[in-house]
Parts: sequence; C-alpha cells; structure tokens
Amino acid sequence: MPPGQLRNPLVVPFLRELIEAGEQEAVREFLDDHHPAQVAEIVEDLEPSEGDALLKLLEPRSRAEVMGYLEDETQERIISAINPSDAAALLQLMSHDERANLVNRLDDDIVDEILRRLAHAEREDIRRLASYEPGTAGAVMTTDYATLPPAITVREAIDRLRQEAPDRETIYYSYIVDSDRKLLGLVSLKKLLLSRPRARIEDVMKTDMIVARLDEDQESVAKKIEEYDLIAIPVVDSDDRLLGIVTHDDAADILRQAQAEDLLQFGGVSPDPEVDEAPYWQQSVYSAFRRRIKWLVMLFMAENLTYPVMHNFKWVTDDNHFPALELFLPLLIGTGGNAGSQTVGTVIRGLALGEIEKEHTFRVLFREFLTGLLLGLCLGTLGFFYAHFWRSQPWGLSAVVGLTLLGICMWANTIGSLVPLMARRFGIDPAVISAPFISTLVDATGLVIYFTIAILLLVHWQR
Amino acid sequence: MPPGQLRNPLVVPFLRELIEAGEQEAVREFLDDHHPAQVAEIVEDLEPSEGDALLKLLEPRSRAEVMGYLEDETQERIISAINPSDAAALLQLMSHDERANLVNRLDDDIVDEILRRLAHAEREDIRRLASYEPGTAGAVMTTDYATLPPAITVREAIDRLRQEAPDRETIYYSYIVDSDRKLLGLVSLKKLLLSRPRARIEDVMKTDMIVARLDEDQESVAKKIEEYDLIAIPVVDSDDRLLGIVTHDDAADILRQAQAEDLLQFGGVSPDPEVDEAPYWQQSVYSAFRRRIKWLVMLFMAENLTYPVMHNFKWVTDDNHFPALELFLPLLIGTGGNAGSQTVGTVIRGLALGEIEKEHTFRVLFREFLTGLLLGLCLGTLGFFYAHFWRSQPWGLSAVVGLTLLGICMWANTIGSLVPLMARRFGIDPAVISAPFISTLVDATGLVIYFTIAILLLVHWQR
Repeated sequence: MPPGQLRNPLVVPFLRELIEAGEQEAVREFLDDHHPAQVAEIVEDLEPSEGDALLKLLEPRSRAEVMGYLEDETQERIISAINPSDAAALLQLMSHDERANLVNRLDDDIVDEILRRLAHAEREDIRRLASYEPGTAGAVMTTDYATLPPAITVREAIDRLRQEAPDRETIYYSYIVDSDRKLLGLVSLKKLLLSRPRARIEDVMKTDMIVARLDEDQESVAKKIEEYDLIAIPVVDSDDRLLGIVTHDDAADILRQAQAEDLLQFGGVSPDPEVDEAPYWQQSVYSAFRRRIKWLVMLFMAENLTYPVMHNFKWVTDDNHFPALELFLPLLIGTGGNAGSQTVGTVIRGLALGEIEKEHTFRVLFREFLTGLLLGLCLGTLGFFYAHFWRSQPWGLSAVVGLTLLGICMWANTIGSLVPLMARRFGIDPAVISAPFISTLVDATGLVIYFTIAILLLVHWQR
Repeated sequence: MPPGQLRNPLVVPFLRELIEAGEQEAVREFLDDHHPAQVAEIVEDLEPSEGDALLKLLEPRSRAEVMGYLEDETQERIISAINPSDAAALLQLMSHDERANLVNRLDDDIVDEILRRLAHAEREDIRRLASYEPGTAGAVMTTDYATLPPAITVREAIDRLRQEAPDRETIYYSYIVDSDRKLLGLVSLKKLLLSRPRARIEDVMKTDMIVARLDEDQESVAKKIEEYDLIAIPVVDSDDRLLGIVTHDDAADILRQAQAEDLLQFGGVSPDPEVDEAPYWQQSVYSAFRRRIKWLVMLFMAENLTYPVMHNFKWVTDDNHFPALELFLPLLIGTGGNAGSQTVGTVIRGLALGEIEKEHTFRVLFREFLTGLLLGLCLGTLGFFYAHFWRSQPWGLSAVVGLTLLGICMWANTIGSLVPLMARRFGIDPAVISAPFISTLVDATGLVIYFTIAILLLVHWQR
C-alpha cells in the first residue's frame, strides 16, 4: 500500500498470499512500514481469524497502537478472544484513555479476569478513568503524560523525558506538579531545548496555562484546544490537582462528532447524547424510530395549524371564479419552506462558527429580510409569468401567485433567522432549530399569506 | 483574565485603566502572562487606537504571534496603518502561511512597498505561498518547518533544532531532505531523544510517510492529519520535493469550515468554495441572494410537479362527498417532508463520518424503509384518531389520512436514503442533497399517494 493511501484494494490479497506462503518476515516488514491506522484498516478488511493472525506478528507495542485505531466491536472481539493474561499485557501498552473506553464496553466478568492480572497502579488507573461521567473532560482524558518536579534542572528534565518517552502519549508538553500533584506549570519540549541546561524547571516553566476542569463538557474542552492551537490541555480537579490531559487528536474527534450531530439535529432528529456517539450501524431500527418519532409527532402537531387555516379559508378556494387557486398551494408553501431552510442553515452556521454575536440580532434580521425581499422579487416575477403563460391562468390569479411568493420569501427569511436567534437568546442550543421545524412554521403562515392576498386582490376586487 | 477564559467583561476596563495610568510595565506583564489568542481577543474588544497601542507594548515576536489570531479585517487595518518598514519587520516574524494569506488580501501597491523592504528569500517565500490555488494543500501549507540532512548525527540534529527552534512553527517533526530538497524521511523529536546521540539521522528516520501532494484538496489533507493523528503532514510536488507542511491546527480549522459548509448545503444554499470561506459578515446581501436564488429556482421548478398532480386529481377534492379531503393536504405533505429530512440528515451524517460504505447501500435502504414503516404505523394511527375525533371526520376519510401517513413515511424514508446513496454512487458529493431537495421530491409524490388512497378507499367504495 503506498503511504498515505487507505483501503487499497490490492493490499488484502497481497497480504493473504504472503501469509499463505508462510512469508512471516515479509509480512512483518510490510506492517512495520505502515502507520498503525493503516494496519488497523487492513485488519478490518481481513477475515477475523486472518486479522488476529496479523496482529500476532506485530511486536507488542505496535499491536497496542493498532488496537487504538480499530473499531469498537473489533477491539471487543479481540480482547474477549485472547486469554486474560495476554489481554492484560495488551491493555498495559494501550493508550490510557482508549483502554479505559474499551474496559467500559466489556462484560464485567471479563474485565475482572483481566484487571486481576494487572499491577495495582494500572488497575486503579483504568478504574478511575472508566468511572468519569461520559461527555466530560474526565471521560476523554488520558493519564499517560509526562510530569516533572519544579526543582530539577533542564538537563535532568530532558534525561527524564528520554527515559519516559516510550510510555507517554506525548512528551512535547511536560506538566510540573508538586508533591501533592498540584499543577504548577507547564514546559514544552521546544522550550526545554531552548533553555540553558542548568536552568531550573521552575524558572523556565509557563505558569499561566489554559486548563480544563474535570467535569467540564468535552466539547468546551475541545474548543479550547482548537482556539489556542494546543497539542494537549491539562485536566485538573477543584483543588488544581492534575488528573489527566486531553490531546489534540481527541479534540478533533470530539468536534467532528459534535458537528455531525448538528446535521442530525438540523434534519429534525432529536439529539440524544447517549446514542449519538454510537455509529450508524450500532443503533437499532427501534432506537432510530424512538428518536425520530418524538420530533415527528411534535412537528405533526405544529403542522396541524394548517388545518384550521385551510378550513377558515375554504370559501375562497370554493369560489367558482378561481377554481385554480388551490392548485398552486403545495408549490407556494413548499417554496416558503425551502427559503426558510436556506436562511436557518445560514444563520445556524454563522452561530456555530461564532461569527454572529449577541449584539448582531437586529442586523442579521434586517439582512435576511432584505435577502428575502430580493429572492421574493425574483421568484415572484418568475411565478407571475409562469402562472399566466405556462399554466394559462388569468392575470389576476397570476398576480396573487407572484405576490404570495414575494410575501412568503420575506416572511420565511424573517422566521428562519428570528427563531434561531431567539433560541440563542433564551439559552436554547440554536442547532436544535431544524429545517423541518422552520418549514412547518412557514407552512401554516404561508397559507394565511396566500389566502389573504387572494381575498384582497380577487374576491374584494370582484365585488 | 483567568487563564482559559475568553472575553471576560472585566479585562478591557481593567486594561484601559492601566494604560491611562501609564502603567506600561504592568500592562506588558499582564499580556506576557496570556496566550496570544487571548491577547488577540482583547485587541478585538478594544477601540482600534487602543488595540494598536497595546500591540506596540509587546515584544516583536509576541506581536507577530498575536497577529495570527486576529480577524482578517483587523490584520489588514493594522498592517496598512503602520509604515512599510515596520510592516515588513512584522511580516518577517509571522507564521509563513498566515503572512502569505494576509498579503493575498492586501492592495497590490501596499504589498509592493512592504515586500521591497524584505530580504530576497522572505519575499520569494511569501510570493510563492501566496500563488497556490485556493483550496489546495499549497494554499494552506507553511514553510517554517525544520529540515535536516541525512548524514548528520542525532546529537548534531538536536543542536541544529535548538538553534532553529525560535523561527519554526513546529520542531516536533523534522524532515530529512537531500541537496535537491527531495523528501527522504521524517524524524520526530521524541525519536531523536530516544536514539543514541551518535546514530546517523538516515538510520533513525522513518521513510514511509503519510504525505500530501501540492495540488491535493485541502479537505483531503486535513482528513489525513486527523485519520493518522499527525501533528503535521509534509507537502511535496510531483518530484517528491518538500515544499511545505500543513499543521494539525490548520487541519482542524479546515474541517470545521467544511462541516459548517455541509450545514449550508443541507439547508439548500448552493455551495460556492470562493464565498464559503468568507465569514457571514463579509458576504454582501447580493452575494447571499445570488447563491440562494439558484437552488430556490431549481426547487421551484421541481415543486411545479405538484401542479399537474393537483390538476389531475382535482375531481377528487371537488367530489362533494368529501369536502374535507383538501384540508389535510398541507399537513400530510408537510409530514412527508419532515420524515424525509430526518432520513437524509441521518444518512448524510453516516456518509460524512465514513460509517456507511459503498457495499452498505441495500442494508441502509432496508433499515430506513423499516424505520419509515414503524414511524408510519405510529403517525398513521395518531392521524387516524386525530382526523376522526378531533376534526370530526367520518371513519372513511380518517382511514385515508392514516393510511396516507403510513405510505408517505415509508416513501419519504426510502427517498431520503436512496437519493444521497445514489448521489455518492454517481460521484456527486452527497452533502449537496439538501433537506429542501428531499421535501420537494416528497411533496409531489406524497400528493399522488394521498389521492390514490382516497380514490381506492372512498371513490371506488362509494360506487
């Protein structure tokens, strides 16, 4: 597989041939040349038994690294299939946050068997990391970071890091703690290299740090890492004791997941943090149903508003002078929903990227109204000619269609920006405001606009 | 401002007081204690003249770092306001990718004035970086990385890095190049610290690397960085010559931007890579209008399909036996659109996260159909009783409403999953398939379902 390319279709057959030919050395060399993420991809593409055989060829540390890139179910299958001693040895070398996650997903009796075979410190580390509440900094942090005491010299610090490096997820930041594990400062490896070898750590360390609290929301922690371009952020408890770090690659995963959830919410699926973290295939049809039905029923209730509107204005469509009035109905309210979806998508994006701030409310409303006016003028003109020339409707009804499009576009853009802005103002996550929600709002009100214009222009005019 | 907290409302007045009292030393100390991103936030919150005064207090390297975190317009204002020599000095210390971006946004005559005052090598570096096509690896890469020749020892390498560190964006990866700048390998600082000081670089370097091509799409590059948990990725030309690196923090920005664009597309705003990179406020109302009108007109055309359907089935609603038939119309097609939006949101999320692969097409279709069946059974029952008991409709019409909801939910879920899956199969970005697009498709077909069930159940029955 050429470096940097995933899922090359030729790799699996090629490796199978090597394995069958007993060329273990060639296979091992091939695997050594590739990134653990690539090896993990290959393992996923192989049959389970082949994948297991491949993993056995790796040296223990590489095997543990590859584990971290495997899918959840594959990790569980592998750890449950090997004997508890081997499983304990594998866990020992895995990244501390990943092994805690894995342990959280395994059956209790398997976990007990494995943990019994680990040293006390390791066992406690796993138990502690596995116990933090999901969605908090504690649950995503890792404990394999490097610490230094404040009183040693830069030279001694570098020597220590050199010894500890193989067991640490990152050595590019070292955390300086006192005997009580209270976080005093941090020093980057770059800073260590730039400092005089005989300088004391406490004189070169940075004391004002960006930190995360143990119970801080994982998304807020990830945003700090991104905001400050950090490689890792220390996690402390209420006594400022250092308990772990969250690394930049985990932050990227958290943010990607969160944004993918925004897409779900925007599509009108009710958000459920417990379930959203599970990938598509791990959610049962029933749980998918349960999550969607909530919103669908609520939207159905809201959509009921269209019934009384239709009922009250029925005399207009029943009027024999304009038998075609109702024919345009789905077209007009559909277009209103579309314009509303566009606006809410734009505004939610601006809010998500932090571009639209609290003080911008009226400016945003005005802008979106203006955009709606332009869109409405354009679509209204189009609709007017379309109704008259293509659908052969009289000028009067065509004018009603055109004016309704103008009115609906302005209205939909106003609603589409007002609702997420109001949501934010009342402390509701604006991403909960979905495209279907706005379409539904615009449906009932769009009908009112249509019938009102029809009455003013056609019915009153006739009399 | 406590570390880790942004936009503390007390900071600005506190700093103003210090500045007015002439406490320059205290201000400088305060700024030194904070992350450049925090200082940048403060500068944005101050009046322009105050911000400029604050920046002047920083030592040159910190000032250049803060520049990188300022908003585009603020950067432009500052660089245009100072004299060309100071601007050149500032650019010289800025991150290479950020200064190239800035130069790309400035007026040509200002740029000429500034570049004339820079050394030849710096000038060329800026010109080259500014010339790559937007959206490619070339346009987002930086050139302030560390390189090493293959023949030196580990000890010599560490000494070199120590000297170069202040001018490098990252020294945690060093790139090994030959005299022709051809990329031979890479070595992490961790590896250097772990290797024997007398070992030669070419013996400890990693030769199989994940690389990016100069003209590779920036999103693909960012995904590689995330996939492999890299701190940076080298960018090479077609002759494997090293031209730059893209760092993990830039990758995070690129992915965040790309996902925010997905939200726009999903809302039915046509994607425009040139414009999407501009924040909300930098887009004129006219450009917002131009981008949205395209899709809105296309959707209007598609929504026209509802007209002939309404026209052909008009005799059913005109039938005097069931005057209420049309009253349910907006409710039913609205619900279909909502179910379709939910499904397309779910499927696009699965595709975006890479959870749904090509071979899953039929399994996804079947799952979504099944979910639609469950949703339809639930909503259909609700709708049936709702029509009969709340809206006092006869059993027959209530049954039509209930059955239509069942049919529309199954149909909307099928369409909502089929369309993005087909788009992917034909090489179209599935994220282009928007919620309004699916709603529109479901509107016309939902009408057909409604009227067909009405004819079968009511009209035929009566005769």
